[in-house]
Amino acid sequence: MYRTHTCGELRLSNKDAQVTLAGWVQTVRKFGAITFIDMRDRYGITQLLFGEDLNAQLELNPLGREFVLQIKGKVSERSNKNKNLPTGDIEILVDEFKVLNKSAVPPFTITDETDGGDDLRMKYRYLDLRRNIIKKNLELRYAVNRSARNYLHENGFYDIETPFLIKSTPEGARDFVVPSRMNAGEFYALPQSPQTFKQLLMVSGYDRYYQIVKCFRDEDLRADRQPEFTQIDCEMAFVEQEDIINMFEGLAKRIFKDVKGIDYTDAIERMSWEDAMWNYGNDKPDIRFEMKIQNLKVQNENYFEALATTEFAVFKNAETVLAISIPNAAEYTRKQTDELTEWVKRPQIGMQGLAFVKVNADETYKSSFDKFFNEAQLKELASFCKAGKGDLILVLAGREERTRKAISELRLEMAKRFGLRKDNEFKLLWVLDFPLFEYDEEFNRWVARHHPFTSPKPGDIDAMINNNHAIEVAEKYLDHPYSKIKANAYDIVLNGNEIGGGSIRIYQRELQEKMFAALGMSKEEAQHKFGFLLGAFEYGAPPHGGIAFGFDRLCAILGGSESIRDFIAFPKNNSGRDVMLDAPSTIDDKQLEELSIKLKKV
Amino acid sequence: MYRTHTCGELRLSNKDAQVTLAGWVQTVRKFGAITFIDMRDRYGITQLLFGEDLNAQLELNPLGREFVLQIKGKVSERSNKNKNLPTGDIEILVDEFKVLNKSAVPPFTITDETDGGDDLRMKYRYLDLRRNIIKKNLELRYAVNRSARNYLHENGFYDIETPFLIKSTPEGARDFVVPSRMNAGEFYALPQSPQTFKQLLMVSGYDRYYQIVKCFRDEDLRADRQPEFTQIDCEMAFVEQEDIINMFEGLAKRIFKDVKGIDYTDAIERMSWEDAMWNYGNDKPDIRFEMKIQNLKVQNENYFEALATTEFAVFKNAETVLAISIPNAAEYTRKQTDELTEWVKRPQIGMQGLAFVKVNADETYKSSFDKFFNEAQLKELASFCKAGKGDLILVLAGREERTRKAISELRLEMAKRFGLRKDNEFKLLWVLDFPLFEYDEEFNRWVARHHPFTSPKPGDIDAMINNNHAIEVAEKYLDHPYSKIKANAYDIVLNGNEIGGGSIRIYQRELQEKMFAALGMSKEEAQHKFGFLLGAFEYGAPPHGGIAFGFDRLCAILGGSESIRDFIAFPKNNSGRDVMLDAPSTIDDKQLEELSIKLKKV
Repeated sequence: MYRTHTCGELRLSNKDAQVTLAGWVQTVRKFGAITFIDMRDRYGITQLLFGEDLNAQLELNPLGREFVLQIKGKVSERSNKNKNLPTGDIEILVDEFKVLNKSAVPPFTITDETDGGDDLRMKYRYLDLRRNIIKKNLELRYAVNRSARNYLHENGFYDIETPFLIKSTPEGARDFVVPSRMNAGEFYALPQSPQTFKQLLMVSGYDRYYQIVKCFRDEDLRADRQPEFTQIDCEMAFVEQEDIINMFEGLAKRIFKDVKGIDYTDAIERMSWEDAMWNYGNDKPDIRFEMKIQNLKVQNENYFEALATTEFAVFKNAETVLAISIPNAAEYTRKQTDELTEWVKRPQIGMQGLAFVKVNADETYKSSFDKFFNEAQLKELASFCKAGKGDLILVLAGREERTRKAISELRLEMAKRFGLRKDNEFKLLWVLDFPLFEYDEEFNRWVARHHPFTSPKPGDIDAMINNNHAIEVAEKYLDHPYSKIKANAYDIVLNGNEIGGGSIRIYQRELQEKMFAALGMSKEEAQHKFGFLLGAFEYGAPPHGGIAFGFDRLCAILGGSESIRDFIAFPKNNSGRDVMLDAPSTIDDKQLEELSIKLKKV
Repeated sequence: MYRTHTCGELRLSNKDAQVTLAGWVQTVRKFGAITFIDMRDRYGITQLLFGEDLNAQLELNPLGREFVLQIKGKVSERSNKNKNLPTGDIEILVDEFKVLNKSAVPPFTITDETDGGDDLRMKYRYLDLRRNIIKKNLELRYAVNRSARNYLHENGFYDIETPFLIKSTPEGARDFVVPSRMNAGEFYALPQSPQTFKQLLMVSGYDRYYQIVKCFRDEDLRADRQPEFTQIDCEMAFVEQEDIINMFEGLAKRIFKDVKGIDYTDAIERMSWEDAMWNYGNDKPDIRFEMKIQNLKVQNENYFEALATTEFAVFKNAETVLAISIPNAAEYTRKQTDELTEWVKRPQIGMQGLAFVKVNADETYKSSFDKFFNEAQLKELASFCKAGKGDLILVLAGREERTRKAISELRLEMAKRFGLRKDNEFKLLWVLDFPLFEYDEEFNRWVARHHPFTSPKPGDIDAMINNNHAIEVAEKYLDHPYSKIKANAYDIVLNGNEIGGGSIRIYQRELQEKMFAALGMSKEEAQHKFGFLLGAFEYGAPPHGGIAFGFDRLCAILGGSESIRDFIAFPKNNSGRDVMLDAPSTIDDKQLEELSIKLKKV
């Protein structure tokens, strides 16, 4: 051992002890003939005092930032105590020291507020990981890992490893594939999730399974997506939706307790997908604050009656008109509403403009469409929107899907501006009763909203079995019985982020075949891709269901961040590159040869 | 919930309770108008009694093996108790039942001694996994996983995930590679181990790291190798060999305690690589029994002096003559020694023949080379080999490497035949002081015995730095100083199997560059492949070292098996195929197109 203690360990009670420490030089401060050094390791920082007698040696071996040092010395009480450091009462009077390794000057400062940009930090990730702020993230990640494992263990779950070299069955996202050398012309795929394997484990009787496991999706990377990501993946047999909800509420609460010290004793709210879309404009609402959407006009049906007669073209011609009321925002200036208008016109939001109504303190009204709505109508509108004195109503109009998405973004933006999205406040929510299918206009067919293994609600199974999936008239797909079928699925949402989702699965061969057919898969294709699963359903498959948590995102949110990258030790950038390794990279011709593949000239 | 209790839970104390159970039909036994069913789940077996009143319903819904059943009924005391079952005191008087899912007749019996062959079992692995014997293996695997995590957690290790999509740097084994769609013509590799990442984590200051992690090697599969396998991967900073040995002896002992209930209190033996090769013929000796190898003649040097003058051509002309003495085996018949001779002549062993000396009970001697050795010489030989009355000495002669390997195999075979390799006896051993380099005749260059990141012993570093690696005269490679350098490496051996191995690493850029050069890597190649690591060593890399345990094999040995396959939920066969999934398989042209690769015509 290179040390008797760590740099975070020594206290006044260790006074006069002879110790050996090892760590990194954080700072060097010379005061005449003596030198103070802050030495750092994973556990903390300890102050070292090099007296006059070591001066000559220090001059021969000048110490710099990030040098690795080993020292022997005596613990001594500090005259000038540092209350901000757990070791701040003591310092080490150094007797001897040894430079274990030197360091070049780091390309950025190893501090919470570093001067390194993203690219530099990623290239030297091994230095970036030394920063306390990143270390805390990885510690939190491990704490969540540990907490989840303990809870699942106590509840009888087994960690069972599933394979990484599997079969390519692209549904939705693209697979990463791996050429097989021993089976020329054939490929493995990396799993997008262990979905079918955990279902097989249920068929095998392992009725509580979990894994904290890497998954892979070859998608075009959006800002905060990674090609490899981690799931807490769970499955249970002989359960219904309520059982899953209870078990995994327990998991979420346990993690809050273990990791954040929060007793989450409130009942976790539940909301139907319909209500989420209607009131919040998306399926993962942030319910830390109200600010519900008011549906003035949806698919040309007027919920706010005054819209039926308006001459205001923006409202009159719109498919959908939606509003939110921002408490105590009526003092927004013209400059501020103009800026908000620009905000909704950005391509990411994509609206044409923004209408507003201010409810002044004296109960007068000021709107951006005074020409068309008189005071009485504005009052009526405010009342419809549940806006009171001092509130600001923001109104968006346009095509339904875009407008809903836009108002949902605007709601979050306004909440952020008014400090309603607090990092240290946490609110969980279950979203239930999703549609089983979505309609794909391009191919005029159904696609699975969740995945092809999700069961319809028990009451909807007959509708699924007894109807042909074909959509006769594309525009009238909403009339097809499949459009009404609800999935036996559930998402768990934390502060406006989906942190997990799952479903009760299909476990009958006939229903699974019907599902594959509904998704446009021929019998042969279904057999080729999922024959093993259909086969397994013939030998006594039990009812089962499960859930998977997005581990990276869960950690990020618990850490008060919306970016997952700094909660992953070695992440990739938005082009899927590891800039530290410089991967991916070219490989040898010999490797290509052995794998029986060639590069296509580009 | 489909059940109030599991099938392993009910006892006499539950008498008269109304319960709901769910599980699989193990057996159906009709006795006139009543029917007994053994219902099985992961937790056990419970006997169900269907009375006369359910007869009609049973006839309408005949139950078969592996049907999934839900029943409601009352716990009742059995008249005919089964002492072999934890639930054997009770049975359930069934009031109502529901078939949750039917089952076709399984292709093999779901019993410990199944009638299913390997291929069938692998194709229907989801049924094979229902067998109690396999379930016990996976339970043991999870118990080892849990035990290791607890121990490492208590000792301050963090589980930190390292990436799976990395850079191809083939050293030794082949990489599996993954074509990158977003970076046409470039490839990721799957990690053969997280070696460089865990070293970077040490550079980053996370001084105790672990992971239970999948690794990948594209090797031609020998029996009992898998292309994907699991390691318990660990690394520590500021440590020397002794620290690693202490920490991971603790881990091994903890696993014995938690998983097998064994207090492994004995000190764990240590042996140098030299001694292992000299006394046991291999570097992972099974020391549950003695039966050491006697080196009669090695590289034409006679250790047993009588060999200097023998006219027996087999001994006279051999490079090496080795013997083992088998206690109490002198009664081996001619037929048995003939059979043993055939055994050593099999291609897997590859010897020309076998010589033997029987030490009879009356201290007379009978050998297969009586013509050349008189009684006195045989006595001398027996004494040299420490053979006593009733023992059988087996002698092999030939080229050194082959003969050593053969006698080592023969030793294990004889131990097996005499019941000395007991499944429930466990003996750990550290093997130390490996050579750092091996010599590759084909390319006349050095190869790393462990891997290129292993440090020489501290005393050998100068020999490494101060000598050029070039081998002037190929045949005299043993004269090169590099052949004498010992590695700062250690293997941990259990019952003749290497279950783990590791080393103290190089942490200085200069020494690492010297190592890459010694292995024949140009400066450019070293920079291209491992530039990130060489870079990291410039910014304050601490001394560090680690170990990795082969998790699959460790579990197999603890489970009393030498085959890892039945300790892996979904293994691959010897051609690297998953016969259940039928993977690998061909992929769509569209997938190839997107990845910018083509198949080579074969």
